Amino acid sequence: MARDTRRRITETCLLLFNEAGEPAVSTNQIADAVDISPGNLYYHFRRKSDIVTDLFDLYRTRITPLLEVPEQAVLHVDDAWLLLHLMFETVWDYRFIYRDLDSLLGRYDSLRARLQRVIRGKENALRRVCNGLVRSGSMLADDQETRQLSRNMNLVLCYWLSYQNAIGSQQPPERQLGNGVYHVFSLLLPYLEADAREQLGELARAYVS
Amino acid sequence: MARDTRRRITETCLLLFNEAGEPAVSTNQIADAVDISPGNLYYHFRRKSDIVTDLFDLYRTRITPLLEVPEQAVLHVDDAWLLLHLMFETVWDYRFIYRDLDSLLGRYDSLRARLQRVIRGKENALRRVCNGLVRSGSMLADDQETRQLSRNMNLVLCYWLSYQNAIGSQQPPERQLGNGVYHVFSLLLPYLEADAREQLGELARAYVS
Repeated sequence: MARDTRRRITETCLLLFNEAGEPAVSTNQIADAVDISPGNLYYHFRRKSDIVTDLFDLYRTRITPLLEVPEQAVLHVDDAWLLLHLMFETVWDYRFIYRDLDSLLGRYDSLRARLQRVIRGKENALRRVCNGLVRSGSMLADDQETRQLSRNMNLVLCYWLSYQNAIGSQQPPERQLGNGVYHVFSLLLPYLEADAREQLGELARAYVS
Repeated sequence: MARDTRRRITETCLLLFNEAGEPAVSTNQIADAVDISPGNLYYHFRRKSDIVTDLFDLYRTRITPLLEVPEQAVLHVDDAWLLLHLMFETVWDYRFIYRDLDSLLGRYDSLRARLQRVIRGKENALRRVCNGLVRSGSMLADDQETRQLSRNMNLVLCYWLSYQNAIGSQQPPERQLGNGVYHVFSLLLPYLEADAREQLGELARAYVS
């Protein structure tokens, strides 16, 4: 029963945080939304940061297997697409983390090192994806280029939602997600061989059509 | 005399904000650093947001001429390089704006629309730079590609410093600046013709060597 309540709290918070941004949600609003007393909420989680940490751990559990791209992988465009698609889906399901990344890094000391590790892990995984595409002959890029490319891809992946906010975009969020995937793929396209470029171009366009 | 004090306050704040981040600097710290009483500070600026607004206006005055790239401009690599270099320099001199962009957008209602306009203006200027390079034959890209490219370039330009923080980079700030310019240029490179690519590649490498 207590475990059920705990899970209900984290699930509700994920919805609330994704919707309004974590800094904007108070513990009273959380108790209201779960329909429990503030005292009962306090029994399960002493501070809001404890809920954030629990949610971050769920995110990490889901993203970690996606980051384990073997160093010597040989990847074709559809392998790379699937991996990136799943990565984006996970980022989207826990988008409150990226929506206020700087703020979370600044306010939650206990989270900072772990969050930084995941973000660096994402950049490394993207670099191995690029190298895997080079190894299969789908992509033409040297080591320095795959390094720059994976950094830029990760940067767009992390800050796409912030950028939409910064330019005052009026698009609905689902539309913003598709546009984000499309823009990350557009970074890869110029390095691909003709066939691979056509294939990924088609997969990319499906996100915005 | 009062005008001198006012200028001393904004100049000192620019240094403090760039160094520590605007949210971390209190009005008491500002008064201390300028060596005036909190009452005297209050006489010149009622709220910290008034100083932020003044500094933003100075930034806008400097960046605006750089954004006035004519719609039908014909640009060569060295023109594009100079424009981007000056844009980066301006962003760097007022880097507190980009260091905590989401936080500024969220906390200062009166600034939001103006800040969003400048960021959109930067994306448009970058698109005209790309189109200018296409027009001179230095770059091969269609309309959709220059649109994606300028959005990605602006995103990297806006969030480069945040990303350094998000991966826990230990590099000194000046080094981070050079790396940022290099990464923005690396987005352009694959679209350039051989000669232009070599020329910009050389200019880009100078930022990290």
